[in-house]
Amino acid sequence: MAVRPRSVVLLSGGLDSTTALAEARAAGFELYALTIFYGQRHVVEAVAARRVAKAFGIVQHSEQVIDLRAYGGSALTSDLEVPKDRPLDQISHGIPVTYVPARNTVFLSLALAWAEVLGAFDIFVGLNCVDYSGYPDCRPEFLKAFETLANLATKAGVEGAGAFKVHAPLIHWTKEQIIQRGIELGVDYSLTHSCYDPSADGVSCGRCDSCSIRLAAFKSLGIEDPIPYMNE
Amino acid sequence: MAVRPRSVVLLSGGLDSTTALAEARAAGFELYALTIFYGQRHVVEAVAARRVAKAFGIVQHSEQVIDLRAYGGSALTSDLEVPKDRPLDQISHGIPVTYVPARNTVFLSLALAWAEVLGAFDIFVGLNCVDYSGYPDCRPEFLKAFETLANLATKAGVEGAGAFKVHAPLIHWTKEQIIQRGIELGVDYSLTHSCYDPSADGVSCGRCDSCSIRLAAFKSLGIEDPIPYMNE
Repeated sequence: MAVRPRSVVLLSGGLDSTTALAEARAAGFELYALTIFYGQRHVVEAVAARRVAKAFGIVQHSEQVIDLRAYGGSALTSDLEVPKDRPLDQISHGIPVTYVPARNTVFLSLALAWAEVLGAFDIFVGLNCVDYSGYPDCRPEFLKAFETLANLATKAGVEGAGAFKVHAPLIHWTKEQIIQRGIELGVDYSLTHSCYDPSADGVSCGRCDSCSIRLAAFKSLGIEDPIPYMNE
Repeated sequence: MAVRPRSVVLLSGGLDSTTALAEARAAGFELYALTIFYGQRHVVEAVAARRVAKAFGIVQHSEQVIDLRAYGGSALTSDLEVPKDRPLDQISHGIPVTYVPARNTVFLSLALAWAEVLGAFDIFVGLNCVDYSGYPDCRPEFLKAFETLANLATKAGVEGAGAFKVHAPLIHWTKEQIIQRGIELGVDYSLTHSCYDPSADGVSCGRCDSCSIRLAAFKSLGIEDPIPYMNE
């Protein structure tokens, strides 16, 4: 039997990264999932990541903790208020307060460190630029620049054993397209978590930007979102 | 009084990063030092970083812990043996076992995250390519690629508030030149630590590649290395 190539998948436990994991599986890769806790208020997302990792039968799940909270600058890592009840057409403009400084650069760097040790050249991320066009590190040119860096930064790159590739299969898809593709690939979205501001026991608020986008997408597909929300 | 621009300096507590800190100070920057523990066996280096930070009167010292040890692949993060008593001309060839996968990429990413929050555009690193030509992420083209990435990855880069610059003033210097310059800038090298394999109480071995290079440089300058070594 041929050995399957390895891939490192950045897995937050959210809808997008879980779909990216399904894409990596469908592409025939052996799955190594990396979840990074960055001092976010919602560790419930990490619980979701473990649930998803288990359901996908991944080879290894690595968890790293980084204190980006110490640096502040984001509603996801500090006491800034998470915006609620914004109409969808207001969500996509500008850089939101939930932007975490250099987050994707830090995440991809850690994925690269692990990939190099594993002998993997493929990194999968659930980045998507349609609903979050305001995030600077969520653009194809950012990913290209990271690939260039990765091939200069590593032993494997220097020795020419292979070329690192960052796969962001969802990058140009709408949330509806992501969910449709995930369902085709057998993703169970009841395992995932998207809310920026859940209750202490992990129930989604249904009102933050992330919940609004998710709920609208399921609604427009005529599918019920399988996770519970507050006040339901 | 004019406000001094801020800089983030990656500070390991070693001879090179301490000299880079002195360069940032001499260039008129306000100093924010970032020390990253990466599961290395010698936390004694981190103690040195605190000593150095205190001596330089930096504005803030941030410490981050990352478990690169979990990924293995290096004598600095696993149980691989640190080479000893190698002649200097053998040290510079190939990628050494002390290479830590993607370390500098991870370190610079964290520095970038903090810099963005601080409104700093200048990152100082003590990278040097003369004695460690075998490290892939220790080359000028790697640093250029990181600057490109940084300006694509951040709010500041996208909004054009400034351009990130990675300063690696020592990159082409010999260890002798680094020490000479540091002494000119008033660095007290008795505060620094370089050994890859110190005793439990932090005394340098005098025999690993890092000690060998350091000792040879002080000797060739006719200056006594002010730190203690085993068997002295």
